[in-house]
Order: sequence, then structure tokens, then C-alpha cells
Amino acid sequence: MANPTLTHHIVFQPSGRQGRVPHGANLLEAARGLGVEIEAICSGRQTCGKCQVVVEEGFFPKHGLTSAGDHLSPPDGREARYWERHPREANRRLACACEVRGDLMIFVPAESQARKQVVRKAAADRPIVVDPAIRLYYVEVEPPTLEDPLGDWDRIAGELERRFGLAGVRLDPALLGTLQGIIRAGDWKVTVTVWQGREAVRVQPGYHEEACGLAVDIGTTTIAMHLCDLRTGAVLATASEMNPQVAYGEDLMSRVSFVDNRKDGLAILHDAVIAALNRLAAQAAAEAGTTPDAITEIVLVGNTVMHHILLNVSPTQLGQSPFAAVISDAVDVKARELGLKLAPGAHAHVLPIEAGHVGADNVGVILAEEPHKAPADEIWLIVDVGTNGELLLGNRERVFSASSPTGPAFEGAQIRHGMRAAGGAIERVRVDPETLEVRFKVIGREEWSDEAQAPNTRSPILAAGICGSGIIEAVAELFLAGVLTPDGRFAPEVEAPRLKWNEARTKAEFVLAWPHESSTGGPIVLTSDDVRAIQLGKAALYSGARLLMERMGVDRVDRVVLAGAFGSYIDPYHAMVLGMIPDCDLARVVTVGNAAGDGARIALLNKGQREEARRLARWVTYVGIALEPRFQDAFVEAIPLPHSVDAFPHLARPLAEAEGRRRARGVGDVARRRERRGRPAQ
Amino acid sequence: MANPTLTHHIVFQPSGRQGRVPHGANLLEAARGLGVEIEAICSGRQTCGKCQVVVEEGFFPKHGLTSAGDHLSPPDGREARYWERHPREANRRLACACEVRGDLMIFVPAESQARKQVVRKAAADRPIVVDPAIRLYYVEVEPPTLEDPLGDWDRIAGELERRFGLAGVRLDPALLGTLQGIIRAGDWKVTVTVWQGREAVRVQPGYHEEACGLAVDIGTTTIAMHLCDLRTGAVLATASEMNPQVAYGEDLMSRVSFVDNRKDGLAILHDAVIAALNRLAAQAAAEAGTTPDAITEIVLVGNTVMHHILLNVSPTQLGQSPFAAVISDAVDVKARELGLKLAPGAHAHVLPIEAGHVGADNVGVILAEEPHKAPADEIWLIVDVGTNGELLLGNRERVFSASSPTGPAFEGAQIRHGMRAAGGAIERVRVDPETLEVRFKVIGREEWSDEAQAPNTRSPILAAGICGSGIIEAVAELFLAGVLTPDGRFAPEVEAPRLKWNEARTKAEFVLAWPHESSTGGPIVLTSDDVRAIQLGKAALYSGARLLMERMGVDRVDRVVLAGAFGSYIDPYHAMVLGMIPDCDLARVVTVGNAAGDGARIALLNKGQREEARRLARWVTYVGIALEPRFQDAFVEAIPLPHSVDAFPHLARPLAEAEGRRRARGVGDVARRRERRGRPAQ
Repeated sequence: MANPTLTHHIVFQPSGRQGRVPHGANLLEAARGLGVEIEAICSGRQTCGKCQVVVEEGFFPKHGLTSAGDHLSPPDGREARYWERHPREANRRLACACEVRGDLMIFVPAESQARKQVVRKAAADRPIVVDPAIRLYYVEVEPPTLEDPLGDWDRIAGELERRFGLAGVRLDPALLGTLQGIIRAGDWKVTVTVWQGREAVRVQPGYHEEACGLAVDIGTTTIAMHLCDLRTGAVLATASEMNPQVAYGEDLMSRVSFVDNRKDGLAILHDAVIAALNRLAAQAAAEAGTTPDAITEIVLVGNTVMHHILLNVSPTQLGQSPFAAVISDAVDVKARELGLKLAPGAHAHVLPIEAGHVGADNVGVILAEEPHKAPADEIWLIVDVGTNGELLLGNRERVFSASSPTGPAFEGAQIRHGMRAAGGAIERVRVDPETLEVRFKVIGREEWSDEAQAPNTRSPILAAGICGSGIIEAVAELFLAGVLTPDGRFAPEVEAPRLKWNEARTKAEFVLAWPHESSTGGPIVLTSDDVRAIQLGKAALYSGARLLMERMGVDRVDRVVLAGAFGSYIDPYHAMVLGMIPDCDLARVVTVGNAAGDGARIALLNKGQREEARRLARWVTYVGIALEPRFQDAFVEAIPLPHSVDAFPHLARPLAEAEGRRRARGVGDVARRRERRGRPAQ
Repeated sequence: MANPTLTHHIVFQPSGRQGRVPHGANLLEAARGLGVEIEAICSGRQTCGKCQVVVEEGFFPKHGLTSAGDHLSPPDGREARYWERHPREANRRLACACEVRGDLMIFVPAESQARKQVVRKAAADRPIVVDPAIRLYYVEVEPPTLEDPLGDWDRIAGELERRFGLAGVRLDPALLGTLQGIIRAGDWKVTVTVWQGREAVRVQPGYHEEACGLAVDIGTTTIAMHLCDLRTGAVLATASEMNPQVAYGEDLMSRVSFVDNRKDGLAILHDAVIAALNRLAAQAAAEAGTTPDAITEIVLVGNTVMHHILLNVSPTQLGQSPFAAVISDAVDVKARELGLKLAPGAHAHVLPIEAGHVGADNVGVILAEEPHKAPADEIWLIVDVGTNGELLLGNRERVFSASSPTGPAFEGAQIRHGMRAAGGAIERVRVDPETLEVRFKVIGREEWSDEAQAPNTRSPILAAGICGSGIIEAVAELFLAGVLTPDGRFAPEVEAPRLKWNEARTKAEFVLAWPHESSTGGPIVLTSDDVRAIQLGKAALYSGARLLMERMGVDRVDRVVLAGAFGSYIDPYHAMVLGMIPDCDLARVVTVGNAAGDGARIALLNKGQREEARRLARWVTYVGIALEPRFQDAFVEAIPLPHSVDAFPHLARPLAEAEGRRRARGVGDVARRRERRGRPAQ
């Protein structure tokens, strides 16, 4: 060729990006130049092996090129040594070590792509792009000499700029004290953990590729965290415990009162949550085979009261009109300043809040469930069931949010045998509508209670209590079986071995597990008071949803998402029978577990989503439903269990069957009598 | 006029900037648009009164315009109320309240200019432009309502952006806990202290205009600080004390050894300096009528060992080749993280260092004395005299720096009656060459000792000891009087009432102040050992300067700057007679006091100078003179006091006179005999 500059044609797969690059170009840089992001922690030192690519050999007519191994420079000494130490698949090369010498078809395997995707959960269709605020960089620096007296950190910063284009990275001053020892222990080779491309938050001697972070949901009743691999996005460990603040008040308002009434109240609650976070972090780290000081970032969500107490800010203003928060925006703070014992330089990122009663947990739900992307001709309702229920309603044009005082019943609190979603908790319940016999499933066992009693099963299934999803199913099943009336009372006409009445026959208990089926030695029961607590909780959610629908000017919803840390997912059918949610095609009611925690995980793994969260927190319209005069009426209306087919057309058959069973048990008249006494059926 | 848009011609004086602005334009904004920076803490709320301008009335032929008071809108209600409460000079207006309605000649008084200048010291010709990292902003926000639930901080941040164009200011999370109380105490009006345009470090209720910061020089022996007004640049108070680390080692190497030999050595030294800084800050604040928690920034300089210990970093590496520093670049750290008790959000800025032995104090000297701006045909030498002497030599083309182990004699340590430059220290000494009678001056008194003994003076002058400048003068005067020989011994031939010999007549003491002139009740003397300590110190400085001159390829210097915290300034003549500095035209030898501390003050008052310091620290060439083999020889050669006119042509007459006096006292032969025994005179 007469061309003064010899170039070659390269095609990268699977992206299909292609172009011409000069003869002798570095393959890694050529890829970057064509917009193909290949991972490289060491950026050309042939140490990390992350930039592996596959040279596809053969003739590729579509692109008019022939590709072969000799179109790249042969492996040089350092790459050759790499392959001696590591298993090599055919045609694999380290892109950083290759010079382009001819046309090439290059395949970039998933593990070499810089922005990996991680599937959020088995059933999810929205993967998370792994692009965390934390990245690792491996650098080798020249040791100082008398003639070249530059400081240790300045050498590292210089290499970060030269090799990775990161200009002006500053070192967290808290790391200055250990840097000298680390850089010498690593013989002037270190791995630097950089936050947001601008601050070094950890320096380790030698080459490392592990980076992990925590995603935390601080609930009023339960604290749950995931320890995530920040390179792959994988969940390495999960830990949860009851929020120790429960000892100082079960719901939010009692926590606020505790702070108002005790001089050291805020310090006590703050210290309690920090101690719990440190315990859980240690536990999760141990489960993943690491230590808390390897955790370089933590992202937290929580309702506004939890948010304020976490940040050591009095929640008093949140307890009185106009419910003013100290800050709505996201907060970045050194984890150590909160008292967290993670990597000394670790950052804590707290998602923004929406309003005085709609917190960072709800913003996490938005990130995870994306109501702002719902089609304009649909209405989505997202119900996050916790001690405070939070609601989102809308679509891409507008989303309303609200908070509803659900009470802690759905988390198992204020329920006679209620418990957190932990091993041994009854999470599923089926009641035979004829015999009123019960089958249940506990967390930690695959089989149902009746399957486990088969002779080939060794250990019997023992229930320790009942968690949120179990309570919902128990109430719904007893209603469908005709044992509970629409107003939520055990029907006095019903006699059954499992139903124990008080003397006045005004209240009863229904045995879900007999003493021999329980680990407590006593029966596990559902009481009249338990049913009432569940009714009040579901009425708060339902009436809140109806008010948002009024505000939006709609009378139906097209999709319902049930979120909440119930342990197991709630069954949509039972939730609707209970009347927690408005009527909807059951095929479009989904349960997603702890969406707030998922949102924290998304923000942990993708820094762009943090900016999105800040934008969405301001975009969503908050509605203070509890203060609307209509709310009290709507709430009282929503207390009965569903019985009108008009309001719940999708439940026509089960509601009719339930009414048939009540009638068969002679209950119907009582129910109807009560209805006549009260308000007419809708 | 047919112009659709009516505009007016405005000229701003004294800058002379001018242009046309639309009818009805706000005068403050018009000024900004024309590049005239007018101060305005409240930016248009007519609260701060900082934007006062004077309307010049009359006809201005040069600009072809006529200006009058009615070319501005009349004072509106809020401005009128301002003038009711404040004295008003003729034609003064608040620029923020004025609408332009005609041609204008506007004079901006110095106090209204946004970037004020402050004169560094009486004799200085280089003013500091006051443009600190800290600025105050007064904002009024709307209180939250149920419909507008935005957080307290977000309201303030929004106003900062709307009114002052400061986008994305974050709040130091440590302030979250007090913000709610402050914003309510101020009835939704607050003054925000913003650092570097991006972080709020203090929020105060209501309107405030005071901002202050500390400039600190941490010397090996003395810690000195200035409390400065960050709006005017004025020094509000000064405080200093002996560095309490002296108890653990007098010089740098003994401090390093202390850290090496004790597990808690670093913590002890760090805590000692922090405690001293807190004491001094409280003292300076009290003197200025304020409290330490009003101090929102602190800028510190110090040699590398002081720098490392301040930052809680082991100085061990600085004590062994290659003398590696942990960081060369400037450090910004929260003052609270160092243990400093200032405003909770205050930042500490530590100037960069040059090399393992040339620290942030030397960078401060460069900022203050600007050798990098010396004309290319001149050579400037800057000698910073402390326990470690630091040298700068060069001009705008190149500057070399070096460190020389001077020892603490110049700070009064290791001197029999030496003391810090504090009240009662002898700072000036004159010896009558005939009678050997002594006059002295002490710090804190204007008169000389003999003037004070006059009958009309009430309190006698009492000396407590002698500080660096006094010691230098005493040695030089005794040499000029023929009492000291060139090799630094008291001439055994001399008999005088003030000269007390030991029995062997090998050592003597010279009485500077008799017991009745001293506050200690005993005499204040200069001993043979004191003279030797001063000789070693000055030899280190002189030989270091000669080696830098060799490196630069020059054999003369054109200007000498003597810096150092001696208390009073050293007299150039006596310094040269002592042989501290190379020969130079005495008219071009200046003494500047604590230039390192001045540099800290410059960096405190002007944020651009911090960037300049970072650049200069890397631009200066460090020379490790103590390691050069030539240094030992040069050092030994420099121990005698100057006596060769060849080496000190500018001292020809005094040196000849001194030799004459020695000869008259019969001393000459001894000196010459010693010279023959040693090396020949140069």
C-alpha cells in the first residue's frame, strides 16, 4: 500500500462497534477509542487479567475482513508469565498487552465488559447496570530518592492521573497515618479504592480486586442489609435484625416522643441504630469471608424519622405540623462520622427524602419499581407495607406519594404470636373451608406442615410464631372459609376444635399450630384482637390508595405492586381478599419483597441512579392524606373485609363462595344484621 | 429616540469601567455585568448595607455624560428604613436598591469593593488581595408548609443558588443536628458561611457580617498565630507560645526519636500541639472579643516534622534517607478531625511541602517574599532563621531551596539566659567600643535602658533574658568592640568590669544587664558557650547559602531577606557582621519577621494564593545540602566571625575598625597566631 499510515479494521463483538486503528495501536486503547469499555484495574500492567478478549479467527464476509491470532503481537514476557499462572482458554489474550498488526474480529466476554449487568432477582426484568461510585485502581510508583523527594501520596495521585486519567484525586486525610506503612508493605505497588473519581477512600498494599459495599433499609421495626460485591453486583451476604429502637417505642410517633421527653433520647436512639448496623455489618462480612474494614461504601434508606435519627438529628419537627425535615436532599457523610465501623475512609450515602412523612425508603421503592416509567395509559399503585405504609400512584406523567399509619401488625408486632420474618415463622397458611383444618409453611423449610408429617420426613416442622404474610393469609383464609364475618369478628355461630371462645363469646382464638407443632410448647393462635389490628392496618393502606386515586382522578388501577419486608412475599390473592389493595386484575398484582432495600442496592451499584433518585424525590408530588378531612371517613369505610362484588369485581367468585359458606354455617344473618345496623353495603 | 430599547451610559470609578445598561436595570447587577465587583452579603435585601455607592453629580465632559441623583430610582421603603438606622453621607445609595433611569457616574468606595486589599505590614509594598475561601451569604427563606414540604437545608441551598448563583452548595453533615434550631431562632433568616463556594461550614440565625480565620506557624520552638478578619483582612489578635513538644525533644531529630522510641510517642506530640493550638485560639478569640467557635477556617504552616505530627502521621520516614514525606500536596481536612475546637464545620488548610526537609513553612516564605518574581538579572537570598534554617536562592527563572540544621540558639534556646521573644527579652544591644558599657532595649518598652534610667522615667527597665535578635547583636557588638576574637573566643587580654573569667581563663561571661537591671535578681550574661552556639548556627546558614550559590553558578547575591520569628526584626548590619549571610549591599538586606506566618496569612486571605502555593512547591528545586560532601568543609570554614575584607567588601570599614580595636587591646597577635595555626585567612 502506498498509504503513509497503515491502519487495520477491527470489529468488537457483541457490541458490533468497529472502526480503523493505526498499525501498532494498543488493543485496549483501540477498544476505548471505539467506545468499547473493557475492564482493567491495572490498566496495562498485565497484572489484573480483567481485560481478557477472544480473538475470533476466520473470514467474516459481512465485515469483509479476515482475522487471525497473528494479527496481534505475540504475548510478551509479562503476558506470557500471566498465562503461566492462570488457566487459558483458546485464543484468549490480555487486551492491554496486544499491539494491532492486522484486521481483527474481537469478542469481549461478559466478565471483561466494564459495565456489567446484574439481575436484581429471579423474576425481575430490569437488570442493574453495575457502575458504582467505588472503583479500584492498581498502581505501581517509583520509590522516592534524595533527588526526587515527592511525597508518597503525590506519587500515587500522579500515577492515577497518568495511567487512568483521574486528575486531582485527593486522599481522605484520615488515611494519611497508615499510608506510609501500606505503600512500603506493598513495595510501592498499591490498589487504591477511589470514590466518585475524586477521593481515595482506601489504599491496600499490592494488587487487589475485591470491593464491597452495604445496602441498608432501616425500617421502624426491622433493619435489613445486603453486602454486595461492587465489581460484579452479586449479593455476598444478607443480615437483618429487629430495630433495637423498638425498645424505646414501637411506632414512629412514640420514638419522636422519646426524643422529646428525654434529654439524651436522641443519643440513645442514634447509638442503638448505629450499634445494630455495626453488628449486622460484622455478621454479613463474616458470612462473606471478609471483615467490616473492607467495606468501602454504605447506602442507606429509611423513613424520615429513621433518617433523622441515623444522622443524629432530632425528629421533633417531623412529629408536628408542618412535619418539616432538616434536609430533603441526599446526604453524603463519612461513615466514621456516624459511628460506623467500616473502612476508615468509607462514605455513607443516604438517599433523599420526599416529604416529612415520605422518606428515603420510598425513594428506594421508586428506584426499584420505576412507577415514573409506567405507560401513560396505565395507573400503577405501589404499596410498601411497613410500620408506616407508603404509597405511590401514577405513571410517567405524574406520580403521587403518600404515607399511611399502618401500624406494626404487618411486621408481626402487636400480634399475639406475631414475629419478624425469621426462621420458624409461619409464612403461609391454608384453611380447609369444609373441615377448618390448617396447613402451614414456616420460613426455613420447603415442605408444608402436612407433608412434613409424612413418615419419610425426619424432623417435624415446628412453628415459632407467625409473620406478616402468614397473618394476612390466615385472616383471608378464615374469611373465605366463612369463619370471620365481613366486619372482622369470629362468627359466634361457628364451633370448631380449633376455635376457642371466651366465656362471653365476644372474642375467640383460632389455633393455627397445635402445641406439638410449635417450638414454644404452646399453640400458635390468631386472636380477635390480631384480626382487628390487621384490619386497621389494611384500612389505612386501602383508604390511602383510594384518596390518591381521587387526587389523580382515576377509579381503577392497572397494576399493583406489593412491597415490604414480610420475609416471604405476600400472596396477591390473599392481599386482595383482605382488602389491602383496590380491585385489580390478579394477574397484574405482583409482590416484590423489600423494594426499599432493592432501591438502596441499586443506588449502591449505580452512581447514576443516585442522581436519578435526587431528581425523582423532587419530581414526585407528596399528598398529606392523613390530614385530609376525607381520610377519616375513607378509613372507617375500609375497615370491613371485602364483601361487595361491585367494589371488587375481580374477586366475584371467592366472595360469593365465602358468603355461601357463611350462610351454610348460619352466619349470614348476623353479618347482614350488622350491616343494616351500620352503613349499607357499597 | 426611536430606539425600541432605552439604555443609559454608566461609568464606575475608580476602576473606570463603563458601558450601557437598559433603563430600569438594577444598579448592583449592572455593576456586576460590567465587571465591577461590589460587596453584598445580602444580595439585594437592603440588610447588609455593604453595597454603598456614591452618585457623582455634574457634567463629565470626558465621558460625555451628565449624572444626577434622579437618574436613579428614589430610595424605596426598605432602603429608606436602612438610612433611618444608619448615618448617611451625601449622595450615598445602596446599589442593590437602585434602578437605573439615566446616565450615571458612580464612585465605588474602597469599603464597598468586593476584593479589598490589605497592607501586609507597615513597610511592605505588596498588598494582599482579600479573596478568602470563606464568604458569608445572608438568605431569607419561606417556612415549610404542608403543601411545600421541602427540607430546611434545601430551602437555604435554593436561595443560595437563586440569589447568589451558588449551585449545589452542600451542608457539612456535622451541622445537620443544629440547623433546625438555628433556622427557627432566626425566623427563617440565616447567614451562611460558605467554603470555596461549595460547602456550608456555619449557619447563624439572622444577619451577620463577621468572619474570622486563623493563620498559624507551627515552629519547632514557637507556635505563633494571627486571628484575621476574613472580610477586611485585618489582624484582630496575635498569640504565641512555646511549642509544648519542646518538653519531648528540643530539635526535630529528637522529636522523631521520641516517636520512634515510644509506642504512644506520636499521640503525645500530636495531642501537645493540638492542645496548644486550642489554647492559643481561645486566647486570640478572647482578645478579639469573640469565641473560638466563630473561627471558620485555619491555615497552618510548619516544617515537615511539625506538618506530619500535626496531621497525626509518624515523622519516622523524615528522619532517615531518603527523607520521604507522606504527602507533598496541600491538605484540606476538617479542623475537628485534627482535634481543633473551632467552628464545628471549620476547615484546616495545610500548605504544601517542598521536600522531606523543606516544609510548608518555607512555602509560606515563598508566598510572602516572592523570590519567583525577582528580576532575572538579580539573585535573591531568603534566610528563614528558626531551629531549622531554611534557604531560598534564585529569581524568576529558577529558585533553589535548602534546609540547614541551625539549632535553636536563634530562638533563645540552649543559651544561658536565652528566652523566646516575649515581654522583657533583650532584643537590642549596643556595646560602647571604648568603655565596653552596654545599652539595651527590651520587648515591651520603647526606651533604651539608659534612657529609662533618666529621672523623669518612673519604672526602671528590667530584663528577663535575651532573645534571638539580642543575642545576634550582642555577639556582633562584642566582636566589633574587639572583645571577641574572629574565632569566637573572648580575648584573654581583655579586662573589663563586665567580663568575668573562669579560673583557667579559657571561658568568660559578659554581663549585659546587672542584677539591678534584671527581673530575675541576677545578672543577664552572654557566655563563651552562647557565642559558640550562635557561631554553629550562623555557620550552618552561611555555608548553606554558599552551596546554593555554587549550585546556581553565582558568587554574589543582590538582595538578602532575613526572616524568622525573632520577635523584633534582626538588624541587617549585625547579622552581616556575625556572618550569618553572604556579603551584600546593606541597603538591600531587609528583615521581615515571621515570613512563614505571613505566608499562612496570605493563604488564609486569598484562596488563589493556595493554588499558587501548590504550583510553587513543585516548581522550586530542593537541594539536599546537608548530604553534599562539600557541606562539612564549607560549614567548618564558616564558623569564624567575618574578618576578611575580601569575602565581605561591604563590611570593609567596620571590620578594619574591629581589627584596630583588637590590636589596641593587644588582642591582634593572638588572633593572628590562631589563624596561622589553622587555615590562612581567605
